[in-house]
Amino acid sequence: MLQEGSNYLQQTVDEISKLPGIGRKTALRLALHLLKQDKNQVKKLTSSIESLIEHTKKCKKCFNITEAEYCHICNSTKRDHSTICVVQDFPDLMAIENTSQYKGVYHVLGGLISPLEGIGPEDLTITDLHHRVKDASSPIGEIILALSPSMEGDTTGFYISKKLADFNLKITTLARGIPMSGELEYADELSLSRSLAYRTKYESEN
Amino acid sequence: MLQEGSNYLQQTVDEISKLPGIGRKTALRLALHLLKQDKNQVKKLTSSIESLIEHTKKCKKCFNITEAEYCHICNSTKRDHSTICVVQDFPDLMAIENTSQYKGVYHVLGGLISPLEGIGPEDLTITDLHHRVKDASSPIGEIILALSPSMEGDTTGFYISKKLADFNLKITTLARGIPMSGELEYADELSLSRSLAYRTKYESEN
Repeated sequence: MLQEGSNYLQQTVDEISKLPGIGRKTALRLALHLLKQDKNQVKKLTSSIESLIEHTKKCKKCFNITEAEYCHICNSTKRDHSTICVVQDFPDLMAIENTSQYKGVYHVLGGLISPLEGIGPEDLTITDLHHRVKDASSPIGEIILALSPSMEGDTTGFYISKKLADFNLKITTLARGIPMSGELEYADELSLSRSLAYRTKYESEN
Repeated sequence: MLQEGSNYLQQTVDEISKLPGIGRKTALRLALHLLKQDKNQVKKLTSSIESLIEHTKKCKKCFNITEAEYCHICNSTKRDHSTICVVQDFPDLMAIENTSQYKGVYHVLGGLISPLEGIGPEDLTITDLHHRVKDASSPIGEIILALSPSMEGDTTGFYISKKLADFNLKITTLARGIPMSGELEYADELSLSRSLAYRTKYESEN
């Protein structure tokens, strides 16, 4: 939809429209908005993005986002390190943290097993979880599978439970108080904290 | 909704959510998306935005976006410089350019007169338009008011027509009526009654 005009504008619209859920019309609207802003304000945006990319990494233990080697949750002495809550990705961890109900630690998988999307167990941090449980300095007592109620979530949970079957672990899953239709990160805090409190023993559905 | 975690992430989410139409949840989604991208890809985004801000300015004549002193339309010898189409902002100019029907030049107001939003004539490029018509090397023959059919558009059009009343100009406005694509029964009542009131002489298209 852009014709001639400014190459810089065209390039910016190209780049912005690569972001998920942003089409060319929105990208143009955003670029024109930025053009009207104070240069320092725009610089704050771009440098915050660059700092984020430059200085943020994944926790060596749980794969949470962190600026240090280990994240603030893994480093905390106030958390119960014998309980690991397994989540699909960072927004789910944040959603659970926001309930202020959970005192254990996390393990961020980085996705769910999805043959349709070509995501296998080796693309996730499941082997790292296995090592983590095996090599834990103090024994892990419970693994909470806090995964979305979907085919992929169920498959991933089943796979993890099989993988960890050799250890003497209590494997639980979130109570299905959360709506079956909803994604975990959008669940309301009350339902989510309730489903944490009433978590049940994991059982394969087969 | 963000707790503790990465300061860089929090800062980035803060900055992204300042963009129009982007809330904190979307900003977080975008920031996490950027975190998963290749660093060079993200650098392309931020540097394209910085180049846009750095190298783009407004055409000294028509206030279109340009990289040079005058925009490619004002510089073109193929355009009819005696016809000026007055638009609210750059997206409107682009919409008209995309029809490939218009061969005149433009004048970008930078907004519409809106007492409610505290935008007066002095915040727009109306005085520049007046100077432009007065000082034109070859006389301007027609001003087309291509403004939104709203209170603000009508007010702005009226103000401009008064401002330019001293010059011997043809001042026109875009034809308004039912859209070419729409079925008559689905047209909104205002457009339909307006298109009845302003009906034009029937001309066969052959």
